[in-house]
Amino acid sequence: MSETLKRLADVLESRKPANGGDPEKSYVAKLFVKGDDAILKKIGEEATELVMAAKDARVDGDKSHVLYECADLWFHTAVLLAQFDLKPQDVLNELARREGISGIDEKMSRKAD
Amino acid sequence: MSETLKRLADVLESRKPANGGDPEKSYVAKLFVKGDDAILKKIGEEATELVMAAKDARVDGDKSHVLYECADLWFHTAVLLAQFDLKPQDVLNELARREGISGIDEKMSRKAD
Amino acid sequence: MSETLKRLADVLESRKPANGGDPEKSYVAKLFVKGDDAILKKIGEEATELVMAAKDARVDGDKSHVLYECADLWFHTAVLLAQFDLKPQDVLNELARREGISGIDEKMSRKAD
Amino acid sequence: MSETLKRLADVLESRKPANGGDPEKSYVAKLFVKGDDAILKKIGEEATELVMAAKDARVDGDKSHVLYECADLWFHTAVLLAQFDLKPQDVLNELARREGISGIDEKMSRKAD
Repeated sequence: MSETLKRLADVLESRKPANGGDPEKSYVAKLFVKGDDAILKKIGEEATELVMAAKDARVDGDKSHVLYECADLWFHTAVLLAQFDLKPQDVLNELARREGISGIDEKMSRKAD
Repeated sequence: MSETLKRLADVLESRKPANGGDPEKSYVAKLFVKGDDAILKKIGEEATELVMAAKDARVDGDKSHVLYECADLWFHTAVLLAQFDLKPQDVLNELARREGISGIDEKMSRKAD
Repeated sequence: MSETLKRLADVLESRKPANGGDPEKSYVAKLFVKGDDAILKKIGEEATELVMAAKDARVDGDKSHVLYECADLWFHTAVLLAQFDLKPQDVLNELARREGISGIDEKMSRKAD
Repeated sequence: MSETLKRLADVLESRKPANGGDPEKSYVAKLFVKGDDAILKKIGEEATELVMAAKDARVDGDKSHVLYECADLWFHTAVLLAQFDLKPQDVLNELARREGISGIDEKMSRKAD
């Protein structure tokens, strides 16, 4: 398991209001208080920003923006997971499970048919 | 580093046409051949499916669909990263960097202001 | 009322399976049969394509693609409206109502605050 | 042509900074000043909100939210059109053109193949 994803999950967990997260001081605590729709809106927004960053990178050659927006998207998906009491590790397990069953790519290939 | 993300990155790399990936047999190789726009379309599509899955989970109580769609989204962001010769580890490094500088959450909080 | 939007609404209505729409022959009838999620996925997908087209237009100067993708997005929102027994005219009425109350722009300005 | 769409286009045009639009007073003028990315972000955000509203409507039976979010999405696509010196009428013409050539639906059907 990635140490970074583990620490991220721990930080997010600690930001839940039930665990003392303060919406006045913490962006994540505020998202948890606002609830599902606020988090889902961010998923849509960050996905759009990633698309824009990838387009920009082909023009200005700056890939760091792609990385930054991808980190933002992963971060907000981790917030969504926490909102549903799920963990990044669960997503990694799901990815590993697909690989274990049939190869990740072949799995996706069958899905595309 | 997550072993799963490392293996995922290796599989994706091997699916690039330059590395022998066959668009006839591999979903990912086909995405690479189609190029940026096909991958970015999938990002938008999978983000939308994650939003729908989260909405559904509040009705039917089935969180496994949220996990599944999140895995799909992470998978396709990994394809995008590979398309730009970036790695999931680069995203984890970016997330760790933010944490190292100021705490992930405070970083986001300042960004939101 | 726009004649085009009126005719579009009439065509979509006629494609509903209950009105004889045939999913074998009609793309829209197939969307209606697949249901909400298939239509909503298209909304997410077409919005992403519009974003990409706008980015491309700044590089290649071709605005026709923006127009084309915007038409695709409006088309699929009209399908969604039909799925909920709503009409493009209802959306125009909502836009006119906002204008009537306070000026469209001031309405949005207050919302943004 | 829809009078509402025509008036909307006129209002948006008047909000351009070059036409005296004031970003301090007008939400749209502020979007124009911020530029493409701010407008495109809103497209992604409003599309996500429309998806959420449609999901909610199946639970609470309130279709007015679908209408409201669809109006928001059309409004922001009109802002994007204005940013590219295009008009809602151009989108209607594109929709009518497709209908004229082959029937809107058959056009989409061929595209889906």
